[in-house]
Amino acid sequence: MIELVGFDGDDTLWHSEGYYQHAGAEFERIVGTYVDLDDAQTRARLLAAERRNLALLGYGAKSMTLTMVETAIELTDGAISARDIHRIVALGKAILEHPVELLPDVREAVEKVAAQYRVVLITKGDLHHQERKVARSGLDDLFHRIEIVSEKNGRNYGKVLAEFGIKADAFVMIGNSLRSDIEPVVSLGGWGVHVPYHVTWEHELEHGIEAGHPRVFVVHNASEIPGAVARCGGEAASI
Amino acid sequence: MIELVGFDGDDTLWHSEGYYQHAGAEFERIVGTYVDLDDAQTRARLLAAERRNLALLGYGAKSMTLTMVETAIELTDGAISARDIHRIVALGKAILEHPVELLPDVREAVEKVAAQYRVVLITKGDLHHQERKVARSGLDDLFHRIEIVSEKNGRNYGKVLAEFGIKADAFVMIGNSLRSDIEPVVSLGGWGVHVPYHVTWEHELEHGIEAGHPRVFVVHNASEIPGAVARCGGEAASI
Repeated sequence: MIELVGFDGDDTLWHSEGYYQHAGAEFERIVGTYVDLDDAQTRARLLAAERRNLALLGYGAKSMTLTMVETAIELTDGAISARDIHRIVALGKAILEHPVELLPDVREAVEKVAAQYRVVLITKGDLHHQERKVARSGLDDLFHRIEIVSEKNGRNYGKVLAEFGIKADAFVMIGNSLRSDIEPVVSLGGWGVHVPYHVTWEHELEHGIEAGHPRVFVVHNASEIPGAVARCGGEAASI
Repeated sequence: MIELVGFDGDDTLWHSEGYYQHAGAEFERIVGTYVDLDDAQTRARLLAAERRNLALLGYGAKSMTLTMVETAIELTDGAISARDIHRIVALGKAILEHPVELLPDVREAVEKVAAQYRVVLITKGDLHHQERKVARSGLDDLFHRIEIVSEKNGRNYGKVLAEFGIKADAFVMIGNSLRSDIEPVVSLGGWGVHVPYHVTWEHELEHGIEAGHPRVFVVHNASEIPGAVARCGGEAASI
Protein backbone atom coordinates (compact mmCIF):
# COMPACT_ATOMS: atom_id res chain seq x y z
CA MET A 1 0.00 0.00 0.00
CA ILE A 2 1.36 3.38 -1.01
CA GLU A 3 1.15 5.92 1.84
CA LEU A 4 3.14 8.86 0.52
CA VAL A 5 3.71 10.28 -2.95
CA GLY A 6 6.61 12.61 -3.71
CA PHE A 7 6.69 14.99 -6.65
CA ASP A 8 9.76 16.61 -8.15
CA GLY A 9 9.29 20.26 -9.20
CA ASP A 10 11.64 21.41 -12.00
CA ASP A 11 10.73 19.85 -15.37
CA THR A 12 8.19 17.58 -13.71
CA LEU A 13 5.57 20.10 -12.57
CA TRP A 14 6.91 23.22 -14.32
CA HIS A 15 9.36 24.13 -17.08
CA SER A 16 12.90 24.82 -15.89
CA GLU A 17 15.81 23.34 -17.85
CA GLY A 18 14.99 25.38 -20.96
CA TYR A 19 15.80 28.58 -19.05
CA TYR A 20 19.18 27.19 -17.98
CA GLN A 21 19.93 26.02 -21.52
CA HIS A 22 19.02 29.44 -22.92
CA ALA A 23 21.44 31.06 -20.45
CA GLY A 24 24.09 28.52 -21.41
CA ALA A 25 23.66 29.28 -25.12
CA GLU A 26 23.99 33.02 -24.51
CA PHE A 27 27.09 32.37 -22.41
CA GLU A 28 28.61 30.40 -25.31
CA ARG A 29 27.79 33.25 -27.68
CA ILE A 30 29.48 35.86 -25.43
CA VAL A 31 32.59 33.74 -24.82
CA GLY A 32 32.68 32.88 -28.56
CA THR A 33 33.33 36.52 -29.42
CA TYR A 34 36.66 36.27 -27.55
CA VAL A 35 38.02 32.79 -28.16
CA ASP A 36 38.24 30.23 -30.91
CA LEU A 37 36.13 27.54 -29.25
CA ASP A 38 32.95 26.12 -30.72
CA ASP A 39 29.80 26.06 -28.58
CA ALA A 40 30.21 22.39 -27.70
CA GLN A 41 33.73 22.99 -26.39
CA THR A 42 32.63 25.99 -24.33
CA ARG A 43 29.67 23.99 -23.00
CA ALA A 44 31.96 21.10 -22.01
CA ARG A 45 34.28 23.49 -20.16
CA LEU A 46 31.35 25.05 -18.30
CA LEU A 47 29.93 21.66 -17.34
CA ALA A 48 33.34 20.54 -16.04
CA ALA A 49 33.62 23.73 -13.98
CA GLU A 50 30.08 23.31 -12.62
CA ARG A 51 30.95 19.82 -11.47
CA ARG A 52 34.17 20.98 -9.83
CA ASN A 53 32.21 23.68 -7.98
CA LEU A 54 29.29 21.45 -7.02
CA ALA A 55 30.61 20.39 -3.61
CA LEU A 56 31.27 24.02 -2.69
CA LEU A 57 28.41 25.87 -4.42
CA GLY A 58 25.62 23.30 -4.69
CA TYR A 59 22.91 23.38 -7.36
CA GLY A 60 20.90 26.24 -8.77
CA ALA A 61 21.00 29.38 -10.85
CA LYS A 62 23.24 31.39 -8.51
CA SER A 63 25.86 28.64 -8.54
CA MET A 64 25.64 28.37 -12.33
CA THR A 65 26.05 32.13 -12.66
CA LEU A 66 29.15 32.29 -10.46
CA THR A 67 30.65 29.39 -12.42
CA MET A 68 29.83 31.13 -15.73
CA VAL A 69 31.63 34.28 -14.54
CA GLU A 70 34.67 32.29 -13.42
CA THR A 71 34.75 30.19 -16.58
CA ALA A 72 34.35 33.18 -18.90
CA ILE A 73 37.36 34.86 -17.29
CA GLU A 74 39.41 31.67 -17.43
CA LEU A 75 38.51 30.78 -21.04
CA THR A 76 39.22 34.31 -22.29
CA ASP A 77 42.40 34.50 -20.22
CA GLY A 78 41.09 37.68 -18.60
CA ALA A 79 40.28 39.43 -21.87
CA ILE A 80 36.51 39.54 -21.34
CA SER A 81 35.13 43.02 -20.63
CA ALA A 82 33.31 43.96 -17.43
CA ARG A 83 30.25 44.77 -19.59
CA ASP A 84 30.12 41.21 -20.88
CA ILE A 85 30.56 39.85 -17.36
CA HIS A 86 27.64 42.05 -16.34
CA ARG A 87 25.62 40.45 -19.16
CA ILE A 88 26.49 37.00 -17.81
CA VAL A 89 25.29 37.98 -14.32
CA ALA A 90 22.07 39.25 -15.94
CA LEU A 91 21.60 35.85 -17.63
CA GLY A 92 21.64 34.23 -14.22
CA LYS A 93 19.21 36.74 -12.76
CA ALA A 94 16.87 36.09 -15.71
CA ILE A 95 16.74 32.41 -14.75
CA LEU A 96 15.68 33.40 -11.25
CA GLU A 97 13.02 35.71 -12.64
CA HIS A 98 11.45 33.38 -15.16
CA PRO A 99 7.71 32.78 -14.87
CA VAL A 100 6.53 29.46 -13.46
CA GLU A 101 4.68 27.68 -16.26
CA LEU A 102 3.04 24.38 -15.34
CA LEU A 103 3.41 21.45 -17.71
CA PRO A 104 0.16 20.26 -19.38
CA ASP A 105 -2.42 18.59 -17.12
CA VAL A 106 -0.22 18.95 -14.01
CA ARG A 107 -2.74 20.58 -11.70
CA GLU A 108 -5.42 17.96 -12.36
CA ALA A 109 -2.90 15.15 -11.91
CA VAL A 110 -1.64 16.44 -8.56
CA GLU A 111 -5.22 17.04 -7.37
CA LYS A 112 -6.21 13.46 -8.22
CA VAL A 113 -3.20 11.99 -6.44
CA ALA A 114 -3.63 14.33 -3.44
CA ALA A 115 -7.26 13.18 -3.10
CA GLN A 116 -6.05 9.66 -2.34
CA TYR A 117 -2.59 10.00 -0.80
CA ARG A 118 -0.45 12.33 1.25
CA VAL A 119 1.69 14.24 -1.24
CA VAL A 120 4.99 16.01 -0.66
CA LEU A 121 7.01 18.17 -3.02
CA ILE A 122 10.69 17.22 -2.95
CA THR A 123 13.00 19.51 -4.87
CA LYS A 124 16.70 20.19 -4.81
CA GLY A 125 18.73 23.29 -5.30
CA ASP A 126 18.49 26.82 -4.10
CA LEU A 127 16.05 27.18 -1.18
CA HIS A 128 15.08 30.76 -1.97
CA HIS A 129 14.49 30.16 -5.69
CA GLN A 130 12.56 26.94 -5.08
CA GLU A 131 10.32 28.57 -2.46
CA ARG A 132 9.54 31.38 -4.89
CA LYS A 133 8.67 28.89 -7.62
CA VAL A 134 6.43 26.84 -5.34
CA ALA A 135 4.58 29.99 -4.27
CA ARG A 136 4.18 31.14 -7.88
CA SER A 137 3.08 27.71 -9.13
CA GLY A 138 -0.24 27.96 -7.29
CA LEU A 139 0.22 24.31 -6.25
CA ASP A 140 1.42 24.88 -2.69
CA ASP A 141 -2.07 24.30 -1.26
CA LEU A 142 -2.02 20.72 -2.60
CA PHE A 143 1.13 19.58 -0.84
CA HIS A 144 1.26 18.42 2.77
CA ARG A 145 4.85 19.46 2.93
CA ILE A 146 7.56 21.00 0.78
CA GLU A 147 10.99 19.48 1.28
CA ILE A 148 13.93 21.25 -0.29
CA VAL A 149 17.11 19.17 -0.11
CA SER A 150 20.62 20.07 -1.18
CA GLU A 151 21.09 16.71 -2.95
CA LYS A 152 18.57 14.04 -3.93
CA ASN A 153 20.31 10.97 -2.61
CA GLY A 154 19.31 7.93 -0.58
CA ARG A 155 20.31 9.61 2.67
CA ASN A 156 18.03 12.61 2.16
CA TYR A 157 15.09 10.54 0.88
CA GLY A 158 15.58 8.32 3.91
CA LYS A 159 15.33 11.36 6.19
CA VAL A 160 12.07 12.46 4.54
CA LEU A 161 10.60 8.96 4.95
CA ALA A 162 11.70 8.86 8.60
CA GLU A 163 9.99 12.20 9.28
CA PHE A 164 6.76 10.84 7.82
CA GLY A 165 7.29 7.54 9.63
CA ILE A 166 6.80 5.33 6.59
CA LYS A 167 8.79 2.54 4.95
CA ALA A 168 10.34 2.91 1.50
CA ASP A 169 8.01 0.37 -0.12
CA ALA A 170 5.05 2.61 0.78
CA PHE A 171 6.59 5.57 -1.07
CA VAL A 172 6.51 6.49 -4.73
CA MET A 173 8.52 9.35 -6.24
CA ILE A 174 7.45 11.07 -9.45
CA GLY A 175 9.98 12.96 -11.53
CA ASN A 176 11.83 13.55 -14.76
CA SER A 177 15.32 12.61 -13.57
CA LEU A 178 16.27 8.94 -13.31
CA ARG A 179 19.41 10.02 -11.43
CA SER A 180 17.75 12.24 -8.82
CA ASP A 181 14.12 11.20 -8.61
CA ILE A 182 13.99 7.50 -9.43
CA GLU A 183 17.26 5.66 -8.77
CA PRO A 184 17.84 6.63 -5.11
CA VAL A 185 14.21 5.89 -4.18
CA VAL A 186 14.16 2.52 -5.95
CA SER A 187 17.49 1.65 -4.30
CA LEU A 188 15.86 2.20 -0.91
CA GLY A 189 13.06 -0.20 -1.90
CA GLY A 190 10.56 2.41 -3.05
CA TRP A 191 8.69 2.99 -6.29
CA GLY A 192 9.22 5.43 -9.14
CA VAL A 193 7.12 7.08 -11.82
CA HIS A 194 9.43 8.48 -14.47
CA VAL A 195 8.06 11.36 -16.54
CA PRO A 196 10.79 12.21 -19.08
CA TYR A 197 11.17 15.86 -20.05
CA HIS A 198 12.28 16.81 -23.54
CA VAL A 199 15.62 18.20 -22.35
CA THR A 200 17.83 17.07 -19.49
CA TRP A 201 20.90 18.68 -17.95
CA GLU A 202 23.89 16.53 -18.89
CA HIS A 203 24.80 16.06 -15.23
CA GLU A 204 21.46 14.30 -14.68
CA LEU A 205 21.95 11.85 -17.54
CA GLU A 206 24.29 9.63 -15.52
CA HIS A 207 22.44 6.95 -13.59
CA GLY A 208 22.64 3.28 -12.81
CA ILE A 209 19.06 2.16 -13.16
CA GLU A 210 18.16 -0.39 -15.84
CA ALA A 211 15.24 0.00 -18.27
CA GLY A 212 12.13 -1.97 -17.36
CA HIS A 213 12.76 -2.04 -13.59
CA PRO A 214 9.73 -3.73 -11.98
CA ARG A 215 9.15 -0.87 -9.49
CA VAL A 216 9.43 1.92 -12.08
CA PHE A 217 6.66 3.03 -14.45
CA VAL A 218 7.23 5.46 -17.30
CA VAL A 219 4.57 7.93 -18.41
CA HIS A 220 4.74 10.72 -20.99
CA ASN A 221 2.06 13.10 -19.81
CA ALA A 222 1.02 14.23 -16.34
CA SER A 223 -2.50 12.91 -16.97
CA GLU A 224 -1.06 9.37 -16.79
CA ILE A 225 0.53 9.93 -13.36
CA PRO A 226 -2.51 8.99 -11.20
CA GLY A 227 -2.89 5.69 -13.05
CA ALA A 228 0.80 4.91 -12.68
CA VAL A 229 0.73 5.67 -8.95
CA ALA A 230 -2.20 3.28 -8.61
CA ARG A 231 -0.03 0.51 -10.07
CA CYS A 232 2.69 1.07 -7.46
CA GLY A 233 2.79 -0.83 -4.19
CA GLY A 234 0.89 -3.75 -5.68
CA GLU A 235 -2.42 -2.02 -5.20
CA ALA A 236 -5.44 -2.98 -7.27
CA ALA A 237 -7.02 0.45 -6.93
CA SER A 238 -7.38 2.58 -10.04
CA ILE A 239 -8.02 6.29 -10.18
CA MET B 1 6.38 25.12 30.23
CA ILE B 2 8.98 25.30 27.45
CA GLU B 3 8.72 22.33 25.09
CA LEU B 4 11.01 23.31 22.24
CA VAL B 5 14.24 25.33 22.06
CA GLY B 6 15.48 26.79 18.79
CA PHE B 7 19.10 27.76 18.18
CA ASP B 8 20.35 30.08 15.47
CA GLY B 9 23.62 28.97 13.80
CA ASP B 10 25.68 31.85 12.35
CA ASP B 11 27.29 34.02 15.07
CA THR B 12 25.33 32.19 17.76
CA LEU B 13 26.92 28.74 17.60
CA TRP B 14 29.82 29.47 15.26
CA HIS B 15 31.67 32.48 13.85
CA SER B 16 30.31 33.79 10.54
CA GLU B 17 29.91 37.55 10.10
CA GLY B 18 33.63 38.19 10.35
CA TYR B 19 34.19 36.21 7.14
CA TYR B 20 31.59 38.31 5.31
CA GLN B 21 33.11 41.52 6.68
CA HIS B 22 36.58 40.46 5.60
CA ALA B 23 35.25 39.82 2.06
CA GLY B 24 33.51 43.21 2.14
CA ALA B 25 36.74 44.98 3.16
CA GLU B 26 38.68 43.30 0.35
CA PHE B 27 35.93 44.29 -2.08
CA GLU B 28 36.25 47.91 -0.95
CA ARG B 29 40.01 47.74 -1.45
CA ILE B 30 39.68 46.37 -5.01
CA VAL B 31 36.99 48.89 -6.01
CA GLY B 32 39.00 51.67 -4.35
CA THR B 33 41.83 51.18 -6.85
CA TYR B 34 39.44 52.30 -9.62
CA VAL B 35 37.20 54.97 -8.15
CA ASP B 36 37.38 57.89 -5.78
CA LEU B 37 35.03 56.53 -3.13
CA ASP B 38 36.02 55.94 0.48
CA ASP B 39 35.37 52.53 2.03
CA ALA B 40 32.20 53.70 3.80
CA GLN B 41 30.70 54.94 0.52
CA THR B 42 31.53 51.71 -1.26
CA ARG B 43 30.12 49.72 1.64
CA ALA B 44 26.89 51.73 1.58
CA ARG B 45 26.50 51.13 -2.16
CA LEU B 46 27.06 47.40 -1.72
CA LEU B 47 24.54 47.20 1.13
CA ALA B 48 21.95 49.07 -0.95
CA ALA B 49 22.53 46.66 -3.86
CA GLU B 50 22.29 43.64 -1.57
CA ARG B 51 18.94 44.88 -0.30
CA ARG B 52 17.65 45.46 -3.84
CA ASN B 53 18.68 41.92 -4.78
CA LEU B 54 17.35 40.29 -1.63
CA ALA B 55 13.90 39.41 -3.01
CA LEU B 56 15.47 37.80 -6.06
CA LEU B 57 18.68 36.29 -4.68
CA GLY B 58 17.96 35.65 -1.01
CA TYR B 59 20.64 35.54 1.72
CA GLY B 60 24.04 33.97 1.75
CA ALA B 61 27.54 34.11 0.36
CA LYS B 62 26.61 33.28 -3.26
CA SER B 63 24.11 36.13 -3.32
CA MET B 64 26.64 38.51 -1.78
CA THR B 65 29.24 37.48 -4.36
CA LEU B 66 26.94 38.06 -7.33
CA THR B 67 26.00 41.44 -5.89
CA MET B 68 29.68 42.32 -5.36
CA VAL B 69 30.43 41.49 -9.01
CA GLU B 70 27.48 43.57 -10.24
CA THR B 71 28.28 46.47 -7.92
CA ALA B 72 31.98 46.51 -8.80
CA ILE B 73 31.13 46.78 -12.51
CA GLU B 74 28.57 49.51 -11.87
CA LEU B 75 30.76 51.56 -9.50
CA THR B 76 33.74 51.42 -11.85
CA ASP B 77 31.53 52.09 -14.87
CA GLY B 78 32.84 48.95 -16.51
CA ALA B 79 36.51 49.80 -15.98
CA ILE B 80 37.26 46.93 -13.60
CA SER B 81 39.43 44.18 -15.07
CA ALA B 82 38.33 40.58 -15.44
CA ARG B 83 41.22 39.63 -13.14
CA ASP B 84 39.82 41.76 -10.35
CA ILE B 85 36.33 40.35 -10.91
CA HIS B 86 37.89 36.91 -10.60
CA ARG B 87 39.38 38.02 -7.27
CA ILE B 88 35.92 39.11 -6.11
CA VAL B 89 34.46 35.70 -7.01
CA ALA B 90 37.31 34.10 -5.06
CA LEU B 91 36.39 36.24 -2.01
CA GLY B 92 32.91 34.73 -2.11
CA LYS B 93 34.22 31.21 -2.47
CA ALA B 94 36.50 31.81 0.52
CA ILE B 95 33.44 32.57 2.66
CA LEU B 96 31.93 29.23 1.63
CA GLU B 97 35.18 27.45 2.46
CA HIS B 98 35.82 28.96 5.87
CA PRO B 99 36.26 26.53 8.76
CA VAL B 100 33.41 26.19 11.25
CA GLU B 101 34.71 27.46 14.58
CA LEU B 102 32.37 27.12 17.53
CA LEU B 103 32.01 30.05 19.91
CA PRO B 104 33.29 29.46 23.48
CA ASP B 105 31.31 26.98 25.62
CA VAL B 106 28.77 26.31 22.86
CA ARG B 107 28.92 22.54 22.82
CA GLU B 108 28.41 22.22 26.58
CA ALA B 109 25.53 24.73 26.47
CA VAL B 110 23.68 22.90 23.69
CA GLU B 111 24.26 19.56 25.43
CA LYS B 112 22.77 20.89 28.69
CA VAL B 113 19.71 22.32 26.94
CA ALA B 114 19.26 19.18 24.80
CA ALA B 115 19.29 17.03 27.93
CA GLN B 116 16.10 18.78 29.10
CA TYR B 117 14.27 19.93 25.95
CA ARG B 118 13.78 19.09 22.31
CA VAL B 119 16.19 21.31 20.41
CA VAL B 120 16.05 22.41 16.79
CA LEU B 121 18.57 24.38 14.77
CA ILE B 122 16.87 27.15 12.77
CA THR B 123 19.08 28.97 10.31
CA LYS B 124 18.45 31.10 7.27
CA GLY B 125 20.25 31.49 4.01
CA ASP B 126 21.82 29.17 1.55
CA LEU B 127 20.70 25.57 2.08
CA HIS B 128 23.87 23.99 0.74
CA HIS B 129 26.25 26.21 2.74
CA GLN B 130 24.23 25.85 5.94
CA GLU B 131 24.09 22.05 5.61
CA ARG B 132 27.86 21.97 5.14
CA LYS B 133 28.35 24.11 8.24
CA VAL B 134 26.04 22.01 10.37
CA ALA B 135 27.87 18.85 9.30
CA ARG B 136 31.27 20.42 10.03
CA SER B 137 30.19 21.86 13.38
CA GLY B 138 29.97 18.42 14.96
CA LEU B 139 26.72 19.51 16.64
CA ASP B 140 24.27 17.81 14.29
CA ASP B 141 23.86 14.84 16.63
CA LEU B 142 22.44 17.14 19.33
CA PHE B 143 19.56 18.58 17.27
CA HIS B 144 16.25 16.81 16.76
CA ARG B 145 15.83 18.64 13.52
CA ILE B 146 17.61 21.19 11.35
CA GLU B 147 15.30 23.74 9.75
CA ILE B 148 16.74 25.98 7.07
CA VAL B 149 14.38 28.79 6.12
CA SER B 150 14.74 31.43 3.42
CA GLU B 151 13.64 34.21 5.80
CA LYS B 152 13.28 34.26 9.59
CA ASN B 153 9.85 35.78 9.91
CA GLY B 154 6.70 35.04 11.87
CA ARG B 155 5.25 32.95 9.06
CA ASN B 156 8.22 30.58 8.91
CA TYR B 157 8.58 30.29 12.70
CA GLY B 158 4.84 29.55 12.79
CA LYS B 159 5.34 26.71 10.30
CA VAL B 160 8.12 25.20 12.41
CA LEU B 161 5.94 25.37 15.54
CA ALA B 162 3.00 23.80 13.64
CA GLU B 163 5.19 20.92 12.49
CA PHE B 164 6.23 20.25 16.09
CA GLY B 165 2.64 20.76 17.24
CA ILE B 166 3.46 23.27 19.98
CA LYS B 167 2.22 26.72 20.88
CA ALA B 168 4.43 29.80 20.67
CA ASP B 169 4.52 30.32 24.45
CA ALA B 170 6.19 26.91 24.80
CA PHE B 171 9.01 27.90 22.45
CA VAL B 172 12.21 29.83 23.09
CA MET B 173 14.59 30.96 20.35
CA ILE B 174 18.27 31.62 21.04
CA GLY B 175 20.26 33.84 18.73
CA ASN B 176 22.41 36.89 18.12
CA SER B 177 19.98 38.81 15.89
CA LEU B 178 17.13 40.75 17.48
CA ARG B 179 15.64 41.18 14.00
CA SER B 180 15.75 37.54 12.88
CA ASP B 181 15.92 35.43 16.02
CA ILE B 182 14.09 37.34 18.73
CA GLU B 183 11.50 39.82 17.41
CA PRO B 184 9.42 37.48 15.19
CA VAL B 185 9.30 34.80 17.90
CA VAL B 186 8.33 37.23 20.66
CA SER B 187 5.68 38.72 18.34
CA LEU B 188 4.13 35.25 18.03
CA GLY B 189 4.01 35.01 21.83
CA GLY B 190 7.22 33.04 22.30
CA TRP B 191 10.41 33.64 24.29
CA GLY B 192 13.85 34.84 23.30
CA VAL B 193 17.40 34.51 24.57
CA HIS B 194 19.54 37.15 22.93
CA VAL B 195 23.27 36.41 22.71
CA PRO B 196 24.85 39.49 21.08
CA TYR B 197 27.81 38.88 18.80
CA HIS B 198 30.59 41.45 18.56
CA VAL B 199 29.76 42.34 14.94
CA THR B 200 26.39 42.43 13.19
CA TRP B 201 25.53 42.82 9.50
CA GLU B 202 23.94 46.26 9.11
CA HIS B 203 20.82 44.73 7.58
CA GLU B 204 20.20 42.88 10.85
CA LEU B 205 20.46 46.00 12.98
CA GLU B 206 16.93 47.16 12.13
CA HIS B 207 14.33 45.78 14.48
CA GLY B 208 11.31 46.88 16.45
CA ILE B 209 11.83 45.18 19.79
CA GLU B 210 12.28 47.31 22.88
CA ALA B 211 15.02 46.78 25.47
CA GLY B 212 13.94 44.95 28.60
CA HIS B 213 11.08 43.00 26.99
CA PRO B 214 9.67 40.65 29.67
CA ARG B 215 9.97 37.56 27.46
CA VAL B 216 13.55 38.26 26.35
CA PHE B 217 16.70 37.50 28.33
CA VAL B 218 20.14 38.71 27.31
CA VAL B 219 23.28 36.69 27.95
CA HIS B 220 26.85 37.32 26.89
CA ASN B 221 28.35 33.85 26.86
CA ALA B 222 26.96 30.50 25.75
CA SER B 223 27.50 29.12 29.25
CA GLU B 224 24.65 31.37 30.45
CA ILE B 225 22.17 29.99 27.87
CA PRO B 226 20.88 27.01 29.89
CA GLY B 227 20.11 29.26 32.87
CA ALA B 228 18.30 31.77 30.65
CA VAL B 229 16.22 29.03 29.02
CA ALA B 230 15.22 27.87 32.49
CA ARG B 231 13.82 31.33 33.21
CA CYS B 232 11.60 31.22 30.09
CA GLY B 233 8.03 29.97 30.19
CA GLY B 234 7.68 30.84 33.85
CA GLU B 235 9.48 27.70 34.94
CA ALA B 236 11.14 27.48 38.32
CA ALA B 237 13.61 24.80 37.19
CA SER B 238 17.26 25.70 37.10
CA ILE B 239 19.97 23.87 35.20
